[in-house]
Amino acid sequence: MAVITLTDAALDAMLAQDVPYGDLTTDALGIAQRPARIRFAARGAMVVCAGEEAAALFTRVGAVPADVVASGTEVEPGALLLTATGTAGSLHRAWKVAQTLMEYASGIATRARRIVDAAPGTAVACTRKSFPGAKPIAVKAVQAGGATMHRLGLSETLLIFPEHRAFLDRPAADWIADLKRRLPEKRLVVETDSVEDAVMLAEAGADVIQLEKLPPEAAARVVARTRGLAPAPVIAAAGGVDETNAAAYAAAGCAVLVTSAPYFAKPADVKVTLEPV
Amino acid sequence: MAVITLTDAALDAMLAQDVPYGDLTTDALGIAQRPARIRFAARGAMVVCAGEEAAALFTRVGAVPADVVASGTEVEPGALLLTATGTAGSLHRAWKVAQTLMEYASGIATRARRIVDAAPGTAVACTRKSFPGAKPIAVKAVQAGGATMHRLGLSETLLIFPEHRAFLDRPAADWIADLKRRLPEKRLVVETDSVEDAVMLAEAGADVIQLEKLPPEAAARVVARTRGLAPAPVIAAAGGVDETNAAAYAAAGCAVLVTSAPYFAKPADVKVTLEPV
Amino acid sequence: MAVITLTDAALDAMLAQDVPYGDLTTDALGIAQRPARIRFAARGAMVVCAGEEAAALFTRVGAVPADVVASGTEVEPGALLLTATGTAGSLHRAWKVAQTLMEYASGIATRARRIVDAAPGTAVACTRKSFPGAKPIAVKAVQAGGATMHRLGLSETLLIFPEHRAFLDRPAADWIADLKRRLPEKRLVVETDSVEDAVMLAEAGADVIQLEKLPPEAAARVVARTRGLAPAPVIAAAGGVDETNAAAYAAAGCAVLVTSAPYFAKPADVKVTLEPV
Amino acid sequence: MAVITLTDAALDAMLAQDVPYGDLTTDALGIAQRPARIRFAARGAMVVCAGEEAAALFTRVGAVPADVVASGTEVEPGALLLTATGTAGSLHRAWKVAQTLMEYASGIATRARRIVDAAPGTAVACTRKSFPGAKPIAVKAVQAGGATMHRLGLSETLLIFPEHRAFLDRPAADWIADLKRRLPEKRLVVETDSVEDAVMLAEAGADVIQLEKLPPEAAARVVARTRGLAPAPVIAAAGGVDETNAAAYAAAGCAVLVTSAPYFAKPADVKVTLEPV
Amino acid sequence: MAVITLTDAALDAMLAQDVPYGDLTTDALGIAQRPARIRFAARGAMVVCAGEEAAALFTRVGAVPADVVASGTEVEPGALLLTATGTAGSLHRAWKVAQTLMEYASGIATRARRIVDAAPGTAVACTRKSFPGAKPIAVKAVQAGGATMHRLGLSETLLIFPEHRAFLDRPAADWIADLKRRLPEKRLVVETDSVEDAVMLAEAGADVIQLEKLPPEAAARVVARTRGLAPAPVIAAAGGVDETNAAAYAAAGCAVLVTSAPYFAKPADVKVTLEPV
Amino acid sequence: MAVITLTDAALDAMLAQDVPYGDLTTDALGIAQRPARIRFAARGAMVVCAGEEAAALFTRVGAVPADVVASGTEVEPGALLLTATGTAGSLHRAWKVAQTLMEYASGIATRARRIVDAAPGTAVACTRKSFPGAKPIAVKAVQAGGATMHRLGLSETLLIFPEHRAFLDRPAADWIADLKRRLPEKRLVVETDSVEDAVMLAEAGADVIQLEKLPPEAAARVVARTRGLAPAPVIAAAGGVDETNAAAYAAAGCAVLVTSAPYFAKPADVKVTLEPV
Repeated sequence: MAVITLTDAALDAMLAQDVPYGDLTTDALGIAQRPARIRFAARGAMVVCAGEEAAALFTRVGAVPADVVASGTEVEPGALLLTATGTAGSLHRAWKVAQTLMEYASGIATRARRIVDAAPGTAVACTRKSFPGAKPIAVKAVQAGGATMHRLGLSETLLIFPEHRAFLDRPAADWIADLKRRLPEKRLVVETDSVEDAVMLAEAGADVIQLEKLPPEAAARVVARTRGLAPAPVIAAAGGVDETNAAAYAAAGCAVLVTSAPYFAKPADVKVTLEPV
Repeated sequence: MAVITLTDAALDAMLAQDVPYGDLTTDALGIAQRPARIRFAARGAMVVCAGEEAAALFTRVGAVPADVVASGTEVEPGALLLTATGTAGSLHRAWKVAQTLMEYASGIATRARRIVDAAPGTAVACTRKSFPGAKPIAVKAVQAGGATMHRLGLSETLLIFPEHRAFLDRPAADWIADLKRRLPEKRLVVETDSVEDAVMLAEAGADVIQLEKLPPEAAARVVARTRGLAPAPVIAAAGGVDETNAAAYAAAGCAVLVTSAPYFAKPADVKVTLEPV
Repeated sequence: MAVITLTDAALDAMLAQDVPYGDLTTDALGIAQRPARIRFAARGAMVVCAGEEAAALFTRVGAVPADVVASGTEVEPGALLLTATGTAGSLHRAWKVAQTLMEYASGIATRARRIVDAAPGTAVACTRKSFPGAKPIAVKAVQAGGATMHRLGLSETLLIFPEHRAFLDRPAADWIADLKRRLPEKRLVVETDSVEDAVMLAEAGADVIQLEKLPPEAAARVVARTRGLAPAPVIAAAGGVDETNAAAYAAAGCAVLVTSAPYFAKPADVKVTLEPV
Repeated sequence: MAVITLTDAALDAMLAQDVPYGDLTTDALGIAQRPARIRFAARGAMVVCAGEEAAALFTRVGAVPADVVASGTEVEPGALLLTATGTAGSLHRAWKVAQTLMEYASGIATRARRIVDAAPGTAVACTRKSFPGAKPIAVKAVQAGGATMHRLGLSETLLIFPEHRAFLDRPAADWIADLKRRLPEKRLVVETDSVEDAVMLAEAGADVIQLEKLPPEAAARVVARTRGLAPAPVIAAAGGVDETNAAAYAAAGCAVLVTSAPYFAKPADVKVTLEPV
Repeated sequence: MAVITLTDAALDAMLAQDVPYGDLTTDALGIAQRPARIRFAARGAMVVCAGEEAAALFTRVGAVPADVVASGTEVEPGALLLTATGTAGSLHRAWKVAQTLMEYASGIATRARRIVDAAPGTAVACTRKSFPGAKPIAVKAVQAGGATMHRLGLSETLLIFPEHRAFLDRPAADWIADLKRRLPEKRLVVETDSVEDAVMLAEAGADVIQLEKLPPEAAARVVARTRGLAPAPVIAAAGGVDETNAAAYAAAGCAVLVTSAPYFAKPADVKVTLEPV
Repeated sequence: MAVITLTDAALDAMLAQDVPYGDLTTDALGIAQRPARIRFAARGAMVVCAGEEAAALFTRVGAVPADVVASGTEVEPGALLLTATGTAGSLHRAWKVAQTLMEYASGIATRARRIVDAAPGTAVACTRKSFPGAKPIAVKAVQAGGATMHRLGLSETLLIFPEHRAFLDRPAADWIADLKRRLPEKRLVVETDSVEDAVMLAEAGADVIQLEKLPPEAAARVVARTRGLAPAPVIAAAGGVDETNAAAYAAAGCAVLVTSAPYFAKPADVKVTLEPV
């Protein structure tokens, strides 16, 4: 989790988006070569994420980072998150990208942690609805928050939506058996928004039943009606799951809470000071 | 604004992040070659953005998009935003990336529009605090909302922060005159969080005074005390500006409202249907 | 499976590796603008793969492909696989890359199919040992052969090697239960090279037991001793599996045959003719 | 030859193909931060290649490589090829890509060496038929084996195929003279599959005659009939050349053996151990 | 200005264009591993640029650079610019790219400096007409010469050409007021080739009047007729501006000299010695 | 030669360097959607180059190019080179990059042609000293001018510099024979700046003698003293060769003129008109 999840090329591309041809202001003021220090601190309580990447950004512009708080750490308001020393030019160059990256990532991690904490012992799995193109940092933030990824994409997991079933004219037991024989190493996940359908799918052999926008009470009924199967299916709640209802779904017996909520968190606020030394 | 702002390579990279090696579920079900139609619609009122990119994503996987609503259009709940026809395999491949991209972009555009509408006749300028790496779509969304970019990066504009001034031991009038002589084609923007300092900077010749986290009343005092200068400086409000206080800052006489709020908007909700045809 | 699995950028990079700055011979002979036709045919029986990509290569240099045989098709010696018309310059430019790509991909697909055919009804899953950097085309070839991917990489599946267990000092039942609770949507795969260990792991709750270099007889013993468990684990054979022993492992009751053999296949031979028209 | 032939970006891309978003298994087991050592050794005799790149892969994930055997070195079974120390997480991350890269590269180098050794004093030149996209490592492996590249692509050498001549209606002496005048710095290579044609081409002034699928006896006749020319042409054997017939072609007087065989070699087997330290 | 303006990926791409698969000559001579030193020196007087990038190129191939002269330094003929030590193979690999990059960049910087020196106290701003694709190094060279960039591209500045005005049917005062209200943070630059039009635009409120191919005398008339405005517009001379007429335009009262001339400078001559050590 | 030598990704990167986030001026004026036509014409006589790429740039932004003059065509002043129709927004977007690319490329092609015309029947070969990173367009321009590339890089040709020979302590005949045996398909080119050394190298078997900065008279002496050898070496003049001395070197008997002069040509002037339609 503490590994740098962005390649050098990705870090350089972020810097180039913000400072494609040098920092006009700092250069024009003639202060680019002055020695300086930058300091990142938490304005509020947060689960920190992407300090490793922020540090790497400072390294790539020639500054020297220090005091990096590891991703996944929960900190109090005011906590020091990162420092870097270097020329004023180098620090200005990486400042905003590093700060913004930590703010978005920590925002996601913090909200993921809140959901995890609301449902101790239950798995929280985040969806694919992160900002397109920003998956590496989003996945890291999810993991820093203590959650996992529901699926990374379409290539490695089996998740049958109603939109798939609309093309099938065979009974569920039929295509479920077929898939399990052909892909015995994969969990077979099927999504539904009906209790009756959920029970039918479980009886037909689905490994995981993903309940789309069913209230906790309905989820509890699915759990109750399928727990006697051998093996009993994993029941996952999805659709509108967040920190306000996570406990209810967990209490209903859902083993997995599928959520997009962390991605939509407000970025965590990182206070920056940059001074001559 | 209606141009596709993402290169083919960027679109392909987004698709590859979500579907690096094909869609296992659709392939395993044997339905990938079945003809199908997908339909995007607005769940709530929104300012649409990135339909052009969504359409391009469908094109790149071999589907045929249609009915694309132009970026910047304000739509009612239920409005059709985009359709595409093609094989079920191709539509599943681009579905989530296209949907998610429109949701984030339309969320930004919608909130930008709300701020613009709250302060008619005043310029709304968005900051650099978009998700690192996602600037092209963020800029498009800002513009679709009717706002502009405060600055695209550090390379082409002059914005002197207190963090720059900490390195200067000359009076402001001195470095302001120097910068204006050396970069006569650039606006000279200076940020401050004090009324007195703002007035002093204006008198020293700054073109734009960016007020950081001053309340509207204080901004009004700066406007009053500098409007007699020839030329009078542009007064910009920054720090915590959003749709709740935009009108107040505009009424205070600020010509520019600098805001990051649109980037933190909740993604707009796009309802998707995918069916056999 | 029939989708083009390589991005435009990847196709262009392949062409640029072979023809970075134009075709000196064709240009120097002054024949680059002459109309021509190229024809790819199978020298031997083969399962065809990557004709779609070969066609795309011809398209990118300005030629017009036709007669593309779909990936996954089994053809007789002499079968036509692809034609393209265009200038002699364009055809020479894409010729060798297109041919070589089809030869490697069809070689992999053909050998994968041979293993699949040797063990009807049993899943054949290919490893990560494809040529580094060439995964997209390797995965497509595996699927064209009728096999599946064992795992696409380390990020989405759980596979515990002995090299992991060397770090664990808890009993298997302990970490297995822990992993299943935290990642209830994942299959838990554990590799071992011992019958006793395999049985122990199955009893401890592993979903899939991957037998590394055990002979079919030993595999049969594992199957026999674990089939009574509810649920019974999936038994996978790995290590040296190919078309010569696939039937034996299938007969032993292995539900999955894990193999790298297709990647090491000799490329299928594609005969090319290029003529003036 | 011992230089790292892959850019940082290429190494990162290989790692990202195998581990796009972290190592789920190692992370979930909670062992990612444990100190560990990995050790690569030769299972059989081989000409080693790409140890430098394997080491670079370990470096990029934060591990420390050592004991790297230089590319081109011939080793005995059991020989140590490389070690690296670092966290278990970092070693698992680079393991398979590093191993697989060395196995493919060493397989090519080993077979190239076998052909070189079969025809001492004769040049062995490898074709363009390496895995598309993998040319840098293929070229390095060819050179590590002691062979050279026949041509790197179409942009810098003159090689006239029968497919070119089909467009020419001038006598060979005519276009050969023309090419030699216009490109006096280039060798003029012409391919043919006929003894008579070969002799005619040599008399017409071709610098190199590339014999396509002629048996050694026929090649010997071409050599005999052209060796009196001043200058005598270089005779190259191509088409089906490998370690089984290299000596015969060399004995026939061919100065160059053009071969694709090394690319189709089975990867050399590298044994890996990874242990806590 | 002294920062390395090219990413690692850009440096690697330059090296790969020149040496895609190793240095055949140095390898074939068997001297690649011999220790050596390379030395760059100025043949004539020049303003040095891109020594930092040249040094980075040597670093990337494994050599050790030293004695780097900072970009922007004016040197005498014979001055040492850079040295590097390493194997002969590594030095040959980076030699020509490093030398050529410094020669082009120093050529641009030197000519930019000549124009700057011809018009002391006047801003020299360079156009977008640098070699397409080479903007980062061109911008650095412009700045090393003491000039600035007129505009980096179309996305962040307002410059109205006659080609824009041909689409407008409103009076200039109208669209000028509109643009200033909507984009109060931007300078409004308008280009014209007529004195009368220039005066009209200034009176209508344009911030900067860019005179296209007007002679200095005409520019002086524009200055005289607009200097009484409050605020007076900035007058910029453009079109054919170079070191031969810079002083005349400055004397005419132009505050900005817009020029493409530096990009067309002959590369500065860098003498290279490479010797065994 | 008429093929598009830049990939889509390269074209997009050029556009993105000039217009990373849309065209602020055209958008702000509200004219981006207005129909328009652009027209490129030659201001002076020139050999046209890169019109195909310019057209491709217009295509990529959604405009429709026409009337493209083929690369290599010699045109009179005023000749139409290209037109494109589309929205004003799209035409402004590609205008400057397309124009500048054609100007640089045509400048190179025009000067190359001048040297070729000065020495009819003699090969003109251009060096590697093109702008780093811009090789594809530089090579195309060289060929459009009727010249060839001396060598594309270090990987495929043998060129022994004095800087190589400083590492060799064997007689020239020795390493020349060795290289010819090991690389029989390569021309062996050796550079020298001395007549005596040139003759010695020719006698030792070098295929091509490259004379570095020898005057034509000295070159003539080398030709005279080596023409009796069988085969006689190719004599190439290098160092300061351009249109002013090409005829003299050709008259001296040099078969190849090696020159960097075309790269340093002033860009050819392309007049652009853009109007509403």
